[in-house]
Amino acid sequence: MAENIDFSIQNLWQDVRELSLGAPPNIDRLPSPPTPLEFLRRYVAPNKPCLISAAVPHWPALSLWPSTNYLRTTLSTTPVSLHLTPTGKADALAPHPSAPSTLCFASAHVETLPFPQALDSVFASDNEKNKVAYLQQQNDCFRREYGALAADCEDHVPWATAALGCAPEAVNFWVGNNSSETSFHKDHYENLYVVITGEKRFLLLPPTDFHRTYVREYPAAKYLYHQDSGEFSLELEDPATNVPWCSVDPYPSPQEKRREMEKFPLYFNGPKPFEVSVKAGEMLYLPSMWFHHVRQIPDDARLTIAINYWYDMQFDVKYAYFNFLQSIPYTLSKDPSLCKLRNGEAHLDISSCNSGTQVSRDTRGVGDDEND
Amino acid sequence: MAENIDFSIQNLWQDVRELSLGAPPNIDRLPSPPTPLEFLRRYVAPNKPCLISAAVPHWPALSLWPSTNYLRTTLSTTPVSLHLTPTGKADALAPHPSAPSTLCFASAHVETLPFPQALDSVFASDNEKNKVAYLQQQNDCFRREYGALAADCEDHVPWATAALGCAPEAVNFWVGNNSSETSFHKDHYENLYVVITGEKRFLLLPPTDFHRTYVREYPAAKYLYHQDSGEFSLELEDPATNVPWCSVDPYPSPQEKRREMEKFPLYFNGPKPFEVSVKAGEMLYLPSMWFHHVRQIPDDARLTIAINYWYDMQFDVKYAYFNFLQSIPYTLSKDPSLCKLRNGEAHLDISSCNSGTQVSRDTRGVGDDEND
Repeated sequence: MAENIDFSIQNLWQDVRELSLGAPPNIDRLPSPPTPLEFLRRYVAPNKPCLISAAVPHWPALSLWPSTNYLRTTLSTTPVSLHLTPTGKADALAPHPSAPSTLCFASAHVETLPFPQALDSVFASDNEKNKVAYLQQQNDCFRREYGALAADCEDHVPWATAALGCAPEAVNFWVGNNSSETSFHKDHYENLYVVITGEKRFLLLPPTDFHRTYVREYPAAKYLYHQDSGEFSLELEDPATNVPWCSVDPYPSPQEKRREMEKFPLYFNGPKPFEVSVKAGEMLYLPSMWFHHVRQIPDDARLTIAINYWYDMQFDVKYAYFNFLQSIPYTLSKDPSLCKLRNGEAHLDISSCNSGTQVSRDTRGVGDDEND
Repeated sequence: MAENIDFSIQNLWQDVRELSLGAPPNIDRLPSPPTPLEFLRRYVAPNKPCLISAAVPHWPALSLWPSTNYLRTTLSTTPVSLHLTPTGKADALAPHPSAPSTLCFASAHVETLPFPQALDSVFASDNEKNKVAYLQQQNDCFRREYGALAADCEDHVPWATAALGCAPEAVNFWVGNNSSETSFHKDHYENLYVVITGEKRFLLLPPTDFHRTYVREYPAAKYLYHQDSGEFSLELEDPATNVPWCSVDPYPSPQEKRREMEKFPLYFNGPKPFEVSVKAGEMLYLPSMWFHHVRQIPDDARLTIAINYWYDMQFDVKYAYFNFLQSIPYTLSKDPSLCKLRNGEAHLDISSCNSGTQVSRDTRGVGDDEND
């Protein structure tokens, strides 16, 4: 029975692609915003992402924010939240401080300082080896901290507000360099993500692919940055808490690649994640519960600036089904027949299944360009 | 593991009620039609039924069709499809003609005859013991056979057409008496069901409750009505085919009640089905994939008349999840702990679980008024 259930889970990954998302996995690109009805019917109801090209052509932000002079002047005395990490990976797995052979969930060190100084930190950390600064705070920071920029964009996405029947719950602002990276996770929001300058590269997996992200409980920890030594320490939360987080790093280092692929075969041997590049002026609809991993490519001024709108999701039958799926264990059988996905769409990348199956080479989320 | 999976399936039944459908199970009643956006957001996207009170106040049908004189005159020479069965149950399970201890799936004998004669048959079969006539045909029969009535109603439901982005795929017409009954089944359509006169009583189960309907394969058979003898025979389809159909009869006869409840504990001991009475002028939104059982209460002229619109459904993530759920076996364990549903909402009705659990008495879909 366990093997049949593994097969049922694999079928689900394929079904949702064949029925709804498309295969090979490309997400819909719309030349301009959809009507509220189209957005609800074609994207929100089926929980399906889309990319909108000329999403906000009327926003002054598109011409104003790429100028750091404009930002420094407008926010000259504004205190803002700056996230500091040694690696650019915050809210990500890191070696456990007292048991380095295991992992913990590490949050950034957060400082509040005037925007111009914070921006200097972001620029400086572009070249630093052991400190990455990222202007962000996922607590509605655009409305809380960046009110001086409010006139440059809209306080909601009108067609999304009409479709979803509510105003955004939070609006977040992101200013970073090419070192910042967001690890695989999901949010319980309908997310509309606008890039103002630079580029964001998303890897997306639908909620049906839950088992492929290897969500596990990790002890929560926080980086502390020591101004005097210029070094970080990583401290466990007190009282201790655990955070369920995705274990998969889709871009392992060359040294770790083989080991990671053996540890997480459902990710590396399963269907490719959806890859979406969101460029300046474009908007991604990232549906609730989708797993996403984000990297960024800066503009000529070495920055990526983005703003995103979180709308409340409906906790409906799709959420009930997701909880059900989460509760069904994938047995991680070593039976080679379970490693051959239907239709032969996904081939084995490494011989992790002790099978005679043809070993082919493809990337499926492993960035060979960066890592090989 | 099997027991855990049974428990996960039970949790799904509860989750979808607690999150989305409501508990105790009542469906939303709207005083008048929703806007297309409301309909999509609140009902279609979450796959949730609703009942609309003043659904079609402007339709001439509401005053015209309850007059059998009007119908006889307007359709005086129109050939229509009449379904004949010995029991009023067509597309339902019946004793297998050559192995009566087993069951088959029996379709009605279908005749084509002028409407006035067909209507006479419906009236006559009100009192007959062994022959029930039902004017219906689920092949778009309103548009194919009843064109003469087209001006009395609308050829679509405008707000539903706007929401769903397409015209109806089929429009069906139903004229029956109190003997006709439709057994539990589901359709792959978004269904808008309008009662013109009389009343329809629906029992509804969400698609998440798949295992509770005990869908099994049955050999397909067809009733043949023999004019000379006035009797029916039941003939297996040739070539033989099997039809997957729900095994549960929610209203077993008093003699069969105990046996049926022991055979189908997940239905009889699980959460109550949603009960909806749709009266003249009201419209039920019956979401795609919902299991439904229908009985009817006639008006003073001894008829129930209804029309329904089938719109194409989206085969999206909800459908993929449903297929996944279908593929996970419920082990029907006799372990008493599996018979106690979460929150104590559903109690045991009969001692089918050999447990010390308190035995309470409630109806949950068993019509005690009729059967006790």
